[in-house]
Amino acid sequence: MRRVVSLSAIALFLGTFACSSLETRSEKETEPRWGLAIHTGAGNYIIEKTSGNILAARRAAMKEALETGHRILSSGGSSLDAVEAAVTILEDSPYFNAGRGAVFTHDGTHELDAAIMDGSSLGAGAVASVKRIKNPVRLARLVMEKSPHVLLAGTGAEAFAAATGGMTFVEPSYFDTDEARKALEDALRKEQGIPSVERETVELHKGTVGAVALDKNGTLAAATSTGGMTNKRPGRIGDTPIIGAGTLAENACCAVSATGHGEYFIRYSVAHEIRSLVLYRGLPVRDAASSVVLDTLKKAGGDGGVIVMDKMGNVAMPFNTRGMGRGYAGPDGAAVIALGAEPLAK
Amino acid sequence: MRRVVSLSAIALFLGTFACSSLETRSEKETEPRWGLAIHTGAGNYIIEKTSGNILAARRAAMKEALETGHRILSSGGSSLDAVEAAVTILEDSPYFNAGRGAVFTHDGTHELDAAIMDGSSLGAGAVASVKRIKNPVRLARLVMEKSPHVLLAGTGAEAFAAATGGMTFVEPSYFDTDEARKALEDALRKEQGIPSVERETVELHKGTVGAVALDKNGTLAAATSTGGMTNKRPGRIGDTPIIGAGTLAENACCAVSATGHGEYFIRYSVAHEIRSLVLYRGLPVRDAASSVVLDTLKKAGGDGGVIVMDKMGNVAMPFNTRGMGRGYAGPDGAAVIALGAEPLAK
Repeated sequence: MRRVVSLSAIALFLGTFACSSLETRSEKETEPRWGLAIHTGAGNYIIEKTSGNILAARRAAMKEALETGHRILSSGGSSLDAVEAAVTILEDSPYFNAGRGAVFTHDGTHELDAAIMDGSSLGAGAVASVKRIKNPVRLARLVMEKSPHVLLAGTGAEAFAAATGGMTFVEPSYFDTDEARKALEDALRKEQGIPSVERETVELHKGTVGAVALDKNGTLAAATSTGGMTNKRPGRIGDTPIIGAGTLAENACCAVSATGHGEYFIRYSVAHEIRSLVLYRGLPVRDAASSVVLDTLKKAGGDGGVIVMDKMGNVAMPFNTRGMGRGYAGPDGAAVIALGAEPLAK
Repeated sequence: MRRVVSLSAIALFLGTFACSSLETRSEKETEPRWGLAIHTGAGNYIIEKTSGNILAARRAAMKEALETGHRILSSGGSSLDAVEAAVTILEDSPYFNAGRGAVFTHDGTHELDAAIMDGSSLGAGAVASVKRIKNPVRLARLVMEKSPHVLLAGTGAEAFAAATGGMTFVEPSYFDTDEARKALEDALRKEQGIPSVERETVELHKGTVGAVALDKNGTLAAATSTGGMTNKRPGRIGDTPIIGAGTLAENACCAVSATGHGEYFIRYSVAHEIRSLVLYRGLPVRDAASSVVLDTLKKAGGDGGVIVMDKMGNVAMPFNTRGMGRGYAGPDGAAVIALGAEPLAK
């Protein structure tokens, strides 16, 4: 345990270092700077132990997500379209715990959660425990735009999708991946007290995906998507689809997408807490996000991280785990990416 | 519409007046004052048009809830026990939109939501879309105490209840009441453009129930329970089971239970917003709660109200509707109750 803490401390240092270059550069500017940031989950994995093929596939999907979102923003598109497109691409990759690569529940099923929010209207949509929707983030947007509700769960959410149209349904087995199955097997063995081989790839499967963006019109948006926790009990809903916990966007302040041990993120209303520290205590997003992630959550035992973008386009990406997959693309066009604790780089 | 606004304004005045006597009395004290407050829903009903029998039954259940909670607190029991007991009694009455009296969904079913939170540990439990649990608030507490999760929904929540034990299961028809059925019929007619007879009792069925309490140890707790909105789509989850939206307790600040148009309460993270205004802007709970309910929510079109108790035992109960059922009992022992817009009274 002590060893983990000290490794985390190094990761935190690197993580902070990695995003402070972004922030410093941006804080000197007086004009808002449009851009897109993504995360692909925080966890206590050691990046060096992960297979090169998996790392390359993850990096390629993150690059595609950033470039797609960047294209939308640079051509004057909305931040809502940018975060939805970026998260959809990450959902379609089997290498993240969202969409295709979603983890298994205790019962060997998949239950996916997602949310999206528009910072200009405070419109929001979210879905929880869906089992047959290929891209839950797209259904979240449909809930926002075509239903009188914010949060729909389970078969009710799928019935809404079927009745409204436009969604791709898949067989539940679409979400089966070997890595996620190994993660469940390990978790079940651990629960029964059977020692298991340490598999770093299992840790990779803790990662929710998400995006925050600011468009040329000054509108912020956030989106998050996840398969939840390996071995979660059926019906468990984490922070991802909870507006104010895992996802939030408000033009007056900032956009937030979180990843981590959802129960803590719900109890501390993490996204809304960061927003409130910025709005009511006047903290820069970097300090607000660090305070919540590196202090409050760390002390409580809540592993995870957040990506935050404020109304000027300043970005913060703190995490209290060994690593957090993350990336950024702004007006200069070059996507910068980190898979673990290392600084963002091309 | 204008008429509604002006009636609301009177209600607001009376509502503010009703609770300011509580607050003023308490703010002069330097010692925390233990106590319990409840609500039974905010709505645009006109209390004078409701049958005397229904009003008497509602008043009796509210009195019993307050006296039961008061007994627990006065004998040194926990605020968590007090709010759970009070909400359980309200759930067992057919005259509120929670437990026994839960409204119907669009499909003619009942889907109940509830949450509870302990301000000392920030432990929280919540359930959504349960169909066969007699007292959802008790299941919420079981989730808090016996599961690793905060929020369980649907059949997964019921499977957890069955596996853990101690919960009373009922047939879904247990929740059928004539008043709730009439409310659904009216809503369906309205949806089809068929004019319906104005039935004030229908409005009564907008009311979620909830409680906040401070015990002699200085611990705050909050609990909320609801059948949601009449005619809601199956799978819809409102603000009640969302920690930070409809329910919150934090010893450093206050306990909040909300009632109203849940989608707005989620998008504005109402409970956490009130808490943040108190903690970070130093507002008294009265001002913080009024600002959110009478200003932010009112402007956005979000009908409803909240009950808030701070760590000194100060109480605020603002609502932006014609009325809100509410009550209070403190150290002096006398339960004070209001059914609509009138001031609290014995």
